[in-house]
Amino acid sequence: MDPPTRFVRSRLDRFQQELFEFLRIPSVSARSEHRADTRRAGQWVVDQMAAAGLEAELIDTDGHPIAVGEWRGAGKEAPTLLVYGHYDVQPVEPLALWTSPPFEPEVREGRIYARGTSDDKGQLFLHLKAIEALLETRGELPVNVVVLAEGEEEVGSPNLLPFVEAHRDRLACDAVVISDSQMFAPGQPSLLFSLRGLSYLEIRVRSAASDLHSGSYGGAVPNPAAVLASILASLHDDQGRVAVEGFYDSVVEWDEETRRQIRDLPFDEKGFQEGVGARGLGGEKGFSTLERLWIRPTCEVNGLLSGYTGEGAKTVLPAEAMAKVSCRLVPDQDPGEVARLIRRHVARVTPDTVEVEIQELHQGLPWRGRPDGPWFQAAREALRATFGTEPVLTGEGGSIPIVPDFERVLGAPAILLGFALPGCNMHAPDEWFPVDHLELGTLTLVDFYRRLGDMSGDE
Amino acid sequence: MDPPTRFVRSRLDRFQQELFEFLRIPSVSARSEHRADTRRAGQWVVDQMAAAGLEAELIDTDGHPIAVGEWRGAGKEAPTLLVYGHYDVQPVEPLALWTSPPFEPEVREGRIYARGTSDDKGQLFLHLKAIEALLETRGELPVNVVVLAEGEEEVGSPNLLPFVEAHRDRLACDAVVISDSQMFAPGQPSLLFSLRGLSYLEIRVRSAASDLHSGSYGGAVPNPAAVLASILASLHDDQGRVAVEGFYDSVVEWDEETRRQIRDLPFDEKGFQEGVGARGLGGEKGFSTLERLWIRPTCEVNGLLSGYTGEGAKTVLPAEAMAKVSCRLVPDQDPGEVARLIRRHVARVTPDTVEVEIQELHQGLPWRGRPDGPWFQAAREALRATFGTEPVLTGEGGSIPIVPDFERVLGAPAILLGFALPGCNMHAPDEWFPVDHLELGTLTLVDFYRRLGDMSGDE
Repeated sequence: MDPPTRFVRSRLDRFQQELFEFLRIPSVSARSEHRADTRRAGQWVVDQMAAAGLEAELIDTDGHPIAVGEWRGAGKEAPTLLVYGHYDVQPVEPLALWTSPPFEPEVREGRIYARGTSDDKGQLFLHLKAIEALLETRGELPVNVVVLAEGEEEVGSPNLLPFVEAHRDRLACDAVVISDSQMFAPGQPSLLFSLRGLSYLEIRVRSAASDLHSGSYGGAVPNPAAVLASILASLHDDQGRVAVEGFYDSVVEWDEETRRQIRDLPFDEKGFQEGVGARGLGGEKGFSTLERLWIRPTCEVNGLLSGYTGEGAKTVLPAEAMAKVSCRLVPDQDPGEVARLIRRHVARVTPDTVEVEIQELHQGLPWRGRPDGPWFQAAREALRATFGTEPVLTGEGGSIPIVPDFERVLGAPAILLGFALPGCNMHAPDEWFPVDHLELGTLTLVDFYRRLGDMSGDE
Repeated sequence: MDPPTRFVRSRLDRFQQELFEFLRIPSVSARSEHRADTRRAGQWVVDQMAAAGLEAELIDTDGHPIAVGEWRGAGKEAPTLLVYGHYDVQPVEPLALWTSPPFEPEVREGRIYARGTSDDKGQLFLHLKAIEALLETRGELPVNVVVLAEGEEEVGSPNLLPFVEAHRDRLACDAVVISDSQMFAPGQPSLLFSLRGLSYLEIRVRSAASDLHSGSYGGAVPNPAAVLASILASLHDDQGRVAVEGFYDSVVEWDEETRRQIRDLPFDEKGFQEGVGARGLGGEKGFSTLERLWIRPTCEVNGLLSGYTGEGAKTVLPAEAMAKVSCRLVPDQDPGEVARLIRRHVARVTPDTVEVEIQELHQGLPWRGRPDGPWFQAAREALRATFGTEPVLTGEGGSIPIVPDFERVLGAPAILLGFALPGCNMHAPDEWFPVDHLELGTLTLVDFYRRLGDMSGDE
């Protein structure tokens, strides 16, 4: 057993105690009453990095501060790795559904239960411990490392991109690694190859100046809720495809190898359906459930509001109807272009007897990993060496806009290397992280960092 | 000038003072704090009837009481007229929009402003004064009369139909007259020939057991809001017709004479559109605006609710979506049958990946007047004699379920003889009734009652 591995294995009890200390800080970024706690968690990260031997500081932003730690000892010729994570956590409500209090970590049946164990304190902590193990046992890291830990990920990272843009030189790197995601299954490590982007719109249809009596006016004054329903119904064809002209023009066809890998994954479709309590599954014809989630774009209705929605019958002809509609995008769809296509489509299908207004609320780029790149390969090999099984490629239906932003601003590929497990209750009560992934995750990262060093030697 | 006419004309000041007294009682049936006021208004009607010479009493129900007055002096061979009206009024909110306080009647520019002037205290009062004028000047009425004034019309008349059914013999009559509606235009009297019925449903579509992340699950788990939109869109074809199979099977085709009269009405389409502030008018192809409102059935969306409806973007895949949908019905559509047709239609168009539930919330029968009947003719002639112009036939898009109920339970035709004017703000701030209709309305009713007496002589 080599020294870093021995170091990690012999100090797991201390690691767990330290992690518990981190988890006990209620750094709920969304709650102003936890403002000081959130800062305290950022300072905790700074202190840990400084103790491990990094130059570390807590940098103020307009919101919660950003913890930055640097180790440049590998020299200017060596590659630089940017580690991104976040020390803030989701709110804990509803509290009554937690088995043990969210900020009093507890081990039950091989899992550490507390808010932030998986998302993302526990996973950020793995990097801190891998860096510590390497610096303690070898006196140096195989590559230059910059750790960037923010405290606003759970509130949409409003100050992160401006920070990255303002500190472009300081954050310059050859790759970005993020551990904030899940493995495909217990014992089955995985690497993310895609994230979906987002184009979120609000559509409002207006008819009369105020709500009217549906008897006295119904049939002659256009019903905005019925018009809105027609608009929404027109967004899909009977094959489950988005029926907006040009919507698929920029969709990249994935290579047969990636699609084969997705098809070969031991996906438990019945378990997935039962897990969400759905009556049935469905979607775009010709694609599997995982393909629908990972490599195909969608157009979803996120909200509807019009007229009378209380108990019983009210005979109102609504003045207005509103829908929230969002498209999940895949490479190389552009959120702004998709919004433009939807605007054109809605204008085409809306009768001129009503007024329709579309507001663009949120946009995020899709992301496509580079599984054939050397950084991705190093992560793959580190996972295989530690978990003893070949990692699989997985997609993620959600969006992490900072990932394409990092790639764009810093010009470096991102590696999404997560150690949480499915069902770990990120954003829900009873969030947990497997106890043994404290060891396996840290050892994977130690191995990953070392492979990056070897790789730089090859160059 | 005959005695009853002279009586009315010479006592208009007193009539107005009495009406003001009636209007000052805040008989808002929907508000429990006005429970005693509402009863007081019912007692006021009883006292007025008793003073005029009717046997009158206030009869308790499970809600507000019903005022009943009877005059049977015309004898068993003479016809009996049932006068129906209501002494309760709508709530007055928003108070800030009233020019003068709602329960402090005020005359401005030829109009009496107060809550209940048109709906229905002012119009019920016309009958009380017509009866008084005839009894004072002739010592008798031309027909037997039963006045039935309820105090729960504005809260859906929950105790009226049971009362009518329980007092079927006491309320037995040859015709029912109701003055609770509007004339077509100032100076243009009108008689209602139709009311639309109602079949009100709530449709719920359910997919997953709880709201899901629209990124992580969107595309594979069915979206109930999108399914609901498709269901609603399927309810109409591109001609604006209701696309539910069998929906029009029971729709009576109106005679060419009625349709010609509707077409010939001096209807101000542009004024109608501007009045409601609509961007445009529309509806079933091949019919005019008035036909769409009066003689054609509709299917309206009254409310929509699903997922996230607050400010900004929330990427939720809703668990459920709800729509309130109501059909206005025309003779001889049956509300229960229409609900059944819609259930069948929805079941046919809903994919089996989601669950759909339909609840029937409210039903009311449509009504068709009998313009060729003698009672209707008597009303027509009384209007022509008093207003000096031929009354027109009008329909009403709304529903008054008690009208078909009266006809069904009592086996007597209903005559809807209204004296309010368009724009009189029933149910809105600044409700008003024309000062001169106090005279014209009372004289029309005196004439109407006398023609009924003549009619009975003919039989």
